[in-house]
Amino acid sequence: MAVLVNLASDVGPQADASGDFASLAAAAREAARVVARLPAETRATALRAAARAIRHAAPAILAANAADLAAAREAGQGSAFRDRLALNPDRIEAMAAGIETVAALPDPVGRVLAEWTRPNGLRIRRVAQPLGVIGMIFESRPNVAADAAAIALKSGNAIILRGGSESLGSVRAIHAAFVAGLAEAGVAEAAVQVAPTADRGFVAAMLGGVGLIDLIIPRGGKSLVSRVQAEARVPVLAHAEGLCHSFVHASADLAKARAIVVNAKMRRTGICGATETLLVDAACAATHLNPILDDLGAAGCAFRVCPRTRALRPDLPAATEQDFATEWLDSVLNVAIVDGVEGAIAHIRRFGSEHTDAIVAEDPGAIETFLNGIDSAIVIANASTQFADGGEFGFGGEIGIATGRVHARGPIGPDQLVTFRYHVIGTGQVRA
Amino acid sequence: MAVLVNLASDVGPQADASGDFASLAAAAREAARVVARLPAETRATALRAAARAIRHAAPAILAANAADLAAAREAGQGSAFRDRLALNPDRIEAMAAGIETVAALPDPVGRVLAEWTRPNGLRIRRVAQPLGVIGMIFESRPNVAADAAAIALKSGNAIILRGGSESLGSVRAIHAAFVAGLAEAGVAEAAVQVAPTADRGFVAAMLGGVGLIDLIIPRGGKSLVSRVQAEARVPVLAHAEGLCHSFVHASADLAKARAIVVNAKMRRTGICGATETLLVDAACAATHLNPILDDLGAAGCAFRVCPRTRALRPDLPAATEQDFATEWLDSVLNVAIVDGVEGAIAHIRRFGSEHTDAIVAEDPGAIETFLNGIDSAIVIANASTQFADGGEFGFGGEIGIATGRVHARGPIGPDQLVTFRYHVIGTGQVRA
Repeated sequence: MAVLVNLASDVGPQADASGDFASLAAAAREAARVVARLPAETRATALRAAARAIRHAAPAILAANAADLAAAREAGQGSAFRDRLALNPDRIEAMAAGIETVAALPDPVGRVLAEWTRPNGLRIRRVAQPLGVIGMIFESRPNVAADAAAIALKSGNAIILRGGSESLGSVRAIHAAFVAGLAEAGVAEAAVQVAPTADRGFVAAMLGGVGLIDLIIPRGGKSLVSRVQAEARVPVLAHAEGLCHSFVHASADLAKARAIVVNAKMRRTGICGATETLLVDAACAATHLNPILDDLGAAGCAFRVCPRTRALRPDLPAATEQDFATEWLDSVLNVAIVDGVEGAIAHIRRFGSEHTDAIVAEDPGAIETFLNGIDSAIVIANASTQFADGGEFGFGGEIGIATGRVHARGPIGPDQLVTFRYHVIGTGQVRA
Repeated sequence: MAVLVNLASDVGPQADASGDFASLAAAAREAARVVARLPAETRATALRAAARAIRHAAPAILAANAADLAAAREAGQGSAFRDRLALNPDRIEAMAAGIETVAALPDPVGRVLAEWTRPNGLRIRRVAQPLGVIGMIFESRPNVAADAAAIALKSGNAIILRGGSESLGSVRAIHAAFVAGLAEAGVAEAAVQVAPTADRGFVAAMLGGVGLIDLIIPRGGKSLVSRVQAEARVPVLAHAEGLCHSFVHASADLAKARAIVVNAKMRRTGICGATETLLVDAACAATHLNPILDDLGAAGCAFRVCPRTRALRPDLPAATEQDFATEWLDSVLNVAIVDGVEGAIAHIRRFGSEHTDAIVAEDPGAIETFLNGIDSAIVIANASTQFADGGEFGFGGEIGIATGRVHARGPIGPDQLVTFRYHVIGTGQVRA
């Protein structure tokens, strides 16, 4: 089994933690089997108890977080890193409220997804069931522990949480409160497990845990995710990157296009659904390009533009090929002029990451061609790419946004953390 | 990239075929994009043309197969192997008819799987779309090439076929006919690709083809499947093994139990849905065990039995632990007496492979407990485990039976070779 090296946030010892992992994973498997068979209301009750326990444990969680923050400062971590790590009473309340939102969602377990009867009288039902044991590998934000545990448990799964070493104390405090809530509701605490140390061997054991973990979800920077994808021997539901495009078609309403593009780029530049590249139809560049760029410039956006854009705006810096392949996560926007919907589709196929891409257009034919021609997890017409979010989809939160093609794509909420089985009901049938 | 060694049927040279693979995979990707956007009727028409072309090419396919068979005989392959490899006019007609059955199925592409409207007016649809490029790695049965190509194309995917080296000539002849049919219907021949040689490096390139292949489906013996699972860098939809159980509950109707169990074990012993272990409830062992074992014995079945069974039938040989973990695929049956439904569930969890397990019972509570307590891909009440089959499910054939937990489980037909994307339709919405 390969060891995952250079995991950004890992500074712990290299000792083999596969023994720790194996016993913890076995306990998670047993708990998963129990949790999967609980009545929906029991799991919802347990989540509400976990939310109360987290509110109740706020002082302990904040104390652990203060220690993590002090260590991060001493280790020379910058302010952006420390902001991701930091908790405060508002963030703890948001965590608890998030768990309650998930508790209130419809229960996905046992849902009949399809049902039919065969000519021989066999009745066949496709029924949703929990995946089993989820492995969650994340970086500095400790609140991911609570979000992920709530979503996993809602869908009847057990989960093993492995946060970054810098947030270990905070994550352990959140975990302790969460499972105290479960225990209060009579649900097995072993359903939510946390890595006991920041040992790197534990991550390697998770990634190699065939039969012990059913699905790994990495959440963090590109290097974390691509290392997990490269090393894992168990299935991975990964969010690679969000290289999102907004395309302004010749038929676009200019006022809508201005409002949508400035929101798609500038509302929050650091989230995965932020637009990184603006594509403008050559047929409306003369009228639409400048007002949109002016709005963006006024909002503080910088540009990297293609030769055709530069012909109209020689004041703007030229984009390189690499710029069009860059997820800026910052106030920088690539701009290209393309020829119609097919030109936009070709650009997005070449540079996109199959996360979220949008068209602004009034022409229904152009919208339909774009919606059917773009393979991304989320394809939007006439709205901001920043709607790429589980909460905005009505999923009550998300454990990540998947950009692969198997199992599930887009925001991953409780409905996506299930698999299915077939129930075949006969009356004595035998096969001829 | 690791090289897959000792692939059972591989005797070709070790030269690196990744160059071949890369150009062929790029052509498949381009074709996949075209095929995904074709009208459903065009894909169905192309499949019907492929079926006609295969019937028309029967002499060429049989000639290629005769050469493969002669080489296999020279290489010392046994008669079971040669029977899997052999084609005849009936088998070619079955291949063509199978393609037509798939062509006639409802089209899965573009199907709206869910649809809702958010409070801000955004309309969200979850829409089925093709996976992209499927990689199919199979062993000696050449007809798998036609089945897999038909199912992949029906669901709007391209496919790369890599059969065993012994069937290379047969598979290439089937492929040539199939794509001639596609061409006749004006569909890109590149949508169905075949490995040009039996070079092992080609398999290694497929397994490492991140971004080039979206899903690998191995179909063959346990060693092929487990090697693919161990080496693949791309997602795998695998059928591990079919260690299936039939459980006779205390409430079982004896006549039904006798008919079901003998069919589940003896109808065809070599298929993955064949029962390998009979579990009998201790509460009915005195009445039900002997009649069932007598029927099986009369049908030529041998037994390996647990100590409790031996107490009733000291004439039968004792089973070892390993026997209960063995997929016999032969006229051999493990037998164990268990305590009620929970005893059966515990045995199946310990020894089963999450393929197909059945209960024979009249008590609705026992049936419900079993259906909800067994995690297998297919859970059956009062029918033979040999119904674990895509055709029997109404899927018009299958590309395999998946026993994992992600993406899809059970028989894999056209409906399972799709992913989805979200279409989000706005009227100018921006995110607050």
